[in-house]
Amino acid sequence: MNRPRPPTNDSWFAPLSVDLFLKVLNITLLHPFVAWIIPLCFRAEHQAWDTRPMVVSIIWAIFVTLLWMGNVMSHRIAYGLHREVDLNEEVIVITGGTSGLGLLIAEVYGMRGATVAVLDTKPLENTDARGITYYQCDVTDKAQIARVAADIERDMRIQLGTPTILINNAAVVVGKKLLDMDIDEVDKSLKTNLLSHFYTIKTFLPGMLNNETGGTIVTLSSVIGHLGAAQLSDYAAAKAGVTALHKSLAAELQEYPEIKTILVTPGQLSTPLFNGVHTPNWFIAPVVEPIEVAKEIIKAIDLGLSDHIATPLYARWIDWYNVLPVGLQKITRNLSGIDRSMKTFVGRKSTEKSEKNGDLI
Amino acid sequence: MNRPRPPTNDSWFAPLSVDLFLKVLNITLLHPFVAWIIPLCFRAEHQAWDTRPMVVSIIWAIFVTLLWMGNVMSHRIAYGLHREVDLNEEVIVITGGTSGLGLLIAEVYGMRGATVAVLDTKPLENTDARGITYYQCDVTDKAQIARVAADIERDMRIQLGTPTILINNAAVVVGKKLLDMDIDEVDKSLKTNLLSHFYTIKTFLPGMLNNETGGTIVTLSSVIGHLGAAQLSDYAAAKAGVTALHKSLAAELQEYPEIKTILVTPGQLSTPLFNGVHTPNWFIAPVVEPIEVAKEIIKAIDLGLSDHIATPLYARWIDWYNVLPVGLQKITRNLSGIDRSMKTFVGRKSTEKSEKNGDLI
Repeated sequence: MNRPRPPTNDSWFAPLSVDLFLKVLNITLLHPFVAWIIPLCFRAEHQAWDTRPMVVSIIWAIFVTLLWMGNVMSHRIAYGLHREVDLNEEVIVITGGTSGLGLLIAEVYGMRGATVAVLDTKPLENTDARGITYYQCDVTDKAQIARVAADIERDMRIQLGTPTILINNAAVVVGKKLLDMDIDEVDKSLKTNLLSHFYTIKTFLPGMLNNETGGTIVTLSSVIGHLGAAQLSDYAAAKAGVTALHKSLAAELQEYPEIKTILVTPGQLSTPLFNGVHTPNWFIAPVVEPIEVAKEIIKAIDLGLSDHIATPLYARWIDWYNVLPVGLQKITRNLSGIDRSMKTFVGRKSTEKSEKNGDLI
Repeated sequence: MNRPRPPTNDSWFAPLSVDLFLKVLNITLLHPFVAWIIPLCFRAEHQAWDTRPMVVSIIWAIFVTLLWMGNVMSHRIAYGLHREVDLNEEVIVITGGTSGLGLLIAEVYGMRGATVAVLDTKPLENTDARGITYYQCDVTDKAQIARVAADIERDMRIQLGTPTILINNAAVVVGKKLLDMDIDEVDKSLKTNLLSHFYTIKTFLPGMLNNETGGTIVTLSSVIGHLGAAQLSDYAAAKAGVTALHKSLAAELQEYPEIKTILVTPGQLSTPLFNGVHTPNWFIAPVVEPIEVAKEIIKAIDLGLSDHIATPLYARWIDWYNVLPVGLQKITRNLSGIDRSMKTFVGRKSTEKSEKNGDLI
């Protein structure tokens, strides 16, 4: 499939990022199994237990193992047990699913034989996509969502069934300063990026509660919600909103352990939605391929887990920014160039006609 | 003035909170001046420089002084220089200013001779309040805001002048679970608590930019935006949104140092808006009197500073919650009782007829 893509950095060192180094460390030095191999090797060399290399490597292995166990326990406490996910039984609803990340997830599930309903304002280009049913729907319009929900469940021709997995992915970026935006643009942006989450959850959650094997709600947010940024006031406010909505929803659903909630807060994705955005630092804040994020979302859904997916690495540590002293925050902002990155923004206009209800983060 | 108030905890130890202890420490052991008095006293006793009490007290004094200087520098770097504020020249607009925190701030500025315009849906009860002009205005309606803005500036009868200080204080709490809310309630809540901030800033900021001495925009947010909470999904989303809006706006206004932005993230306030909310821990998370918050806001406005006001103490440290491992976050949530606190919620219904456009956080 030939999709418009933003230009990429194709120098030889482009793939080198702090994320790659951590990935390598995670399956070597930071992996408990590998960490325990090291003292075993020393032992095979007949080193005594009290030599320094032996002691250091054992302490390291214990440290890594405890970290790993702590992490597993922390996740178990926070997210509880997993739910049974049988793809033949699941009906997946994806908003903004005709391009970018949404389409990617829809295609993967379609190929794997799941039932996928895609809600978007612009139709699917690739109509031979297997297992994907397209519904014309503007997610900012409560009435359209209600109508489509009824169609998905009861329409005589197709009748997909009751949705059990909801992926709230539709998003739009205006990319203007607050003063340069029309009030209508503010309204549209906040309705698409924030209010639509309330509408879809209210529409599809009751069906999941009645479903024996529960359901999963995926919220596509963004690191920008934690940071704010010049020319992204509407987008940042909406994404901060959906993150808070996810937290409140998870709290309300504590008595329904079979409903899973997944929060996704990626950094900048390489999709048309963010065409022209200047990336200040490829090493620390690499642009993420949508497929990387899609893989992690699909994995969490398949395992039937609640989760918080943040990628690349800096997105996982972004909350530490907010605990820095305010002066340091300001210096970090200026160094990172976050408030200058939107100056070269083009967006989806450059590649497509339709601007609305698009793809992702 | 006799205003309805939520019931308070009137046991003798109610005023004892971690905030009180810190307040005392801040003007004693943690104050650089007092810290340096201690070694001076030892010197007056003819203690040698190298005795232990002398050394310890000098190290402590140096530590406290460095902390204090670091704090001052951090604020200077983050917020820049102050702007000139002459109350005779300022025109103050307060949304939701006919009750609670908004009314409190309006009255203080009215008594001090400033020009105050109060925007609210329900009229001022106390019509003899000096210096306060009431404008009937629903802040969720862009057209009404535009009309009122024109009235404030150009109305022949009163003609207050161009607003230079905007206090976005109007808020509403629905207090229901997501599934129990009508979609109209969601819409109203997000429009009042989030979208109105965009409307008012877009309306009043251009006038401030043209004003020689600049202006100040105050954003009333809440700690709940950082945390989310059961039965507050709409409110939490909106408050997280306005916090992100504040950050984005501060970034966009970097080139206009004479425009100041103040973010306020209080904990639970003792106002009718939160009647019936159960307070799990009076010591760590005391209920705040609106006057405490009003005092800090007024101080920051008067000094012409940008600032982040968070009170009580836990609200200032709330970002540390988000860097905890997810398992610990869950345990902290359960211990704090934040998701149970809204079960006894009554709200403004208990004391007043009008529910809308009320007071605060």
